[in-house]
Amino acid sequence: MTEQHATRHRGRGRRPAAEVRADVLAAAGRLLLHEGLPAVTFDRVAREAGSSKVTLYKWWPSPGTLAAEAYFAQSAPVLRFPDTGDIRADLVAQLTAFVRWLTREGAATPVSELVGAAQTDPDVARAWAEEYARPRRELARDRLHAAQQRGQLREDADLEVIVDQLWGACYHRLLVLKVPFDETLVPRLVDQALYGAARAR
Amino acid sequence: MTEQHATRHRGRGRRPAAEVRADVLAAAGRLLLHEGLPAVTFDRVAREAGSSKVTLYKWWPSPGTLAAEAYFAQSAPVLRFPDTGDIRADLVAQLTAFVRWLTREGAATPVSELVGAAQTDPDVARAWAEEYARPRRELARDRLHAAQQRGQLREDADLEVIVDQLWGACYHRLLVLKVPFDETLVPRLVDQALYGAARAR
Repeated sequence: MTEQHATRHRGRGRRPAAEVRADVLAAAGRLLLHEGLPAVTFDRVAREAGSSKVTLYKWWPSPGTLAAEAYFAQSAPVLRFPDTGDIRADLVAQLTAFVRWLTREGAATPVSELVGAAQTDPDVARAWAEEYARPRRELARDRLHAAQQRGQLREDADLEVIVDQLWGACYHRLLVLKVPFDETLVPRLVDQALYGAARAR
Repeated sequence: MTEQHATRHRGRGRRPAAEVRADVLAAAGRLLLHEGLPAVTFDRVAREAGSSKVTLYKWWPSPGTLAAEAYFAQSAPVLRFPDTGDIRADLVAQLTAFVRWLTREGAATPVSELVGAAQTDPDVARAWAEEYARPRRELARDRLHAAQQRGQLREDADLEVIVDQLWGACYHRLLVLKVPFDETLVPRLVDQALYGAARAR
């Protein structure tokens, strides 16, 4: 976003709120992904989006919650969850996109910073959990439930545990162990969640 | 720790370094578990342990790294990993102790705060990952490897993936989803990791 662009916006008078909001989220998302969470200040976002800081204060309780919402907007198209009817293929596809997004498309740092902030900032915690992590879990659970109905998963399988064991495994490496990983992990992860680690009984 | 206690220490002259270190870690661990990470300042720990702030600055680069080491010292006796030869029983016992430690013995907040701090503080990240999370993974992997040798786990099972899918699942609920959970989760978690979620092929 350039000064010229911001000036052009100002010259046009009052823009529709939805348009301003989209511009603000896009600017915050760019800052978040390229420079990390500390770069997402109301000052910089307002400047880059050609909006006023007063507007930002009205819409978000803190820069951290704006950053969280910007992350959801940026990640949504990347993290689509395919629905082909083959649960193994759909899980591998979705988790591969997630791991690439983290490790190759720059999301590892902002995700770590957002989850990190969520541990001590209740507003960020609420935005992250309620608007991202739990809705994503719901989506995964819907797909797993459909697979269970089709007979691909055991009737007594705990679908939330499957979610924990797939996405939780990636977060474990990213946040807790802090070891590098890449998408070659994904097929092993999915197969082990589906078929187990024990010798056949 | 009382003023009286601190005074008694000072009156005894120079104490052995190992004794001072143990007192400092114990004081930091108490503050961490009862009041959380922000309570672990060099000021308060020095006062509670009857030691000098200079000593603390010499031994730890920051209060966060002192808190991390204090956490390891506090958690070590709680998180012993039994070795009975029955991998399912040992995993259930260890994970049950871990989940109780988080949810009933007050460790959820300090663990969240430490992992949160590790996302932006490289010293805490290093202390957490290198001195706690990865050595704990090694210990789990040793147990899993022994079970594999005994024929309880498949020869092609990825042991690190099992670790991610067990402990990572707990951290996922604690840090990412921020949903309550308790030790009734553990047997389902272990059985699903061992026997899989898919219908038998």
